[in-house]
Amino acid sequence: MANEFLTFKNANIAEGFTIAGIKEKEGRLGDLYDVTIKDDKCGENTFEKGERSMFEYAIKGLISKANLEINDIGAIVGGDLLNQIISSTFAARELGLPFIGLYNACATYVESLIIGAMMVDGDYKQRVISFTGSHFSTAERQYRYPLELGVLRSPVSQWTATGIGCTLISSYNSKLARISRGWIGKVVDYGIDDVNNMGAAMAPAASDTLIKIFTSTNTKSVDYDLILTGDLGKLGSSILRDLTKQEGYPLGENYLDCGNLIYYDDQQTWQGGSGAACSPLVFNSYVLKNIKEKKLSRVLLIGTGALMSPTSSFQGDTIPTIAHAVEITSFDGGV
Amino acid sequence: MANEFLTFKNANIAEGFTIAGIKEKEGRLGDLYDVTIKDDKCGENTFEKGERSMFEYAIKGLISKANLEINDIGAIVGGDLLNQIISSTFAARELGLPFIGLYNACATYVESLIIGAMMVDGDYKQRVISFTGSHFSTAERQYRYPLELGVLRSPVSQWTATGIGCTLISSYNSKLARISRGWIGKVVDYGIDDVNNMGAAMAPAASDTLIKIFTSTNTKSVDYDLILTGDLGKLGSSILRDLTKQEGYPLGENYLDCGNLIYYDDQQTWQGGSGAACSPLVFNSYVLKNIKEKKLSRVLLIGTGALMSPTSSFQGDTIPTIAHAVEITSFDGGV
Repeated sequence: MANEFLTFKNANIAEGFTIAGIKEKEGRLGDLYDVTIKDDKCGENTFEKGERSMFEYAIKGLISKANLEINDIGAIVGGDLLNQIISSTFAARELGLPFIGLYNACATYVESLIIGAMMVDGDYKQRVISFTGSHFSTAERQYRYPLELGVLRSPVSQWTATGIGCTLISSYNSKLARISRGWIGKVVDYGIDDVNNMGAAMAPAASDTLIKIFTSTNTKSVDYDLILTGDLGKLGSSILRDLTKQEGYPLGENYLDCGNLIYYDDQQTWQGGSGAACSPLVFNSYVLKNIKEKKLSRVLLIGTGALMSPTSSFQGDTIPTIAHAVEITSFDGGV
Repeated sequence: MANEFLTFKNANIAEGFTIAGIKEKEGRLGDLYDVTIKDDKCGENTFEKGERSMFEYAIKGLISKANLEINDIGAIVGGDLLNQIISSTFAARELGLPFIGLYNACATYVESLIIGAMMVDGDYKQRVISFTGSHFSTAERQYRYPLELGVLRSPVSQWTATGIGCTLISSYNSKLARISRGWIGKVVDYGIDDVNNMGAAMAPAASDTLIKIFTSTNTKSVDYDLILTGDLGKLGSSILRDLTKQEGYPLGENYLDCGNLIYYDDQQTWQGGSGAACSPLVFNSYVLKNIKEKKLSRVLLIGTGALMSPTSSFQGDTIPTIAHAVEITSFDGGV
């Protein structure tokens, strides 16, 4: 009964904007970000206030890059990893734009693209900005330990990326790309309870959504120029390769993970990047650049999220996870 | 440039379902809830696990009440007040349905109605369930103090309602009502920093959205059978009356607040109810009942949310607030 996927005819991607942290600047995609910060607190007196100023800066930066005014934007749609998504909220307060707050952990960016695409394609708003991001220092102390404790990190852990990415979705013509399809994920839980090992926890959700994409559209991995997961990291993306292969849908060299793309191997992130910044940082820099240069025309972006809280973990729960997906089609491509 | 409101032609409200707590059962609307709990933990060993079981029960109850099967539902859209919206997430895990997680505090229910209406009206899904809820005992210990401390409550405080409400939005004909319009709120902050006094903090957001409704549709208070705010409580709704009157849009006897409707005066809630349960509990019992009985045909529901976190308050921030709104029209009414 339920549609397997959402079809969008007029959800154009007009522009993207990224602001990245210091470690991310030193990483593989360091030259591709629009702006990088020089101070982890961005001149504020707490990491949290620094994070929120990055959200505000990124959204204003996108509006300016697209040669628009603030009132040209119908709504901003997004969230972050902090409790009560305060970074997004306080940025929205400064911007004064209609605000839809979301939370699906690190899958929130793709969730925001789906909601933004519905809003524009369904003719409810002409222009919407979808956004998310994260900050290493705020996430560490909320989800794990204060940095000052100097706790050793597990070899299966990932590094929460610092950065914000945002995307302008428009009903007006764009020569860049459009969001052509969306898949809303289910909550999947394979019983992993090691909160350091989120890649392993999230891989089954990514597999569930990927298999649904392939079966619902009668496609295979080779039909896409790029299949990109959000933040499975090295271990998680290796597990995803195993899981999809078992189901008869092996992934080839066109499969990459945003968490693996952000850092060099010698940057001591262990399994690579994680966090709500991974997919928006990579999508709005690397992916849009390659679409602009006609090197990519059909891309699957699968946002992956680990949905536990410290409270649920303390109460003995395993890690529930989710994976939302969008198909991006360049205007030279076409489905 | 931006549309002032969203217009929906085919977002039908097919059915509603409520599950309420013990104190709520003893309140003004006690006889109208579908189910009430007898044990604050619902047989689980923590309040948090009790809360999540209420979410699962409510959504299953709605599907059953509407004579549908679980796979007839295209997506569930909602959230709750706990960090990382774990109550909604773990319920979604048990249900196995595509899940969109939202957070705009106590405005999340109306936010979920707007997203659900877009999803159905835009023909992306045939049937969506919008839901939210809250639980006194989990919210108190997360946002304020553990109950065991027995901290005295401020006279300006409100009582977080225990309950879940959910609504089936369908593209199929309904003889009940439809969501005809939606307004996405902006984040408003008038500088209130007393986290006990959320009614006063949220009243300016409700006023901002209400004035926008009246001016964008050229209507006044008397054009609606009922104008209902979410959880301003006694003090907050009195401030809202003052603010809207100053702007030339006085509210009459058709203005009520869900937080004020839930409890009797002698139930020691001080300023009345608050929490993400208020608007879905009242809407899916009292409002839908009166629409069914042809006593209401045009209703404005304004969800109000206080978007601070304990962290933002500890860091000296004031309380940012938001108010989303929907217009509900019965099939005998018509705009």
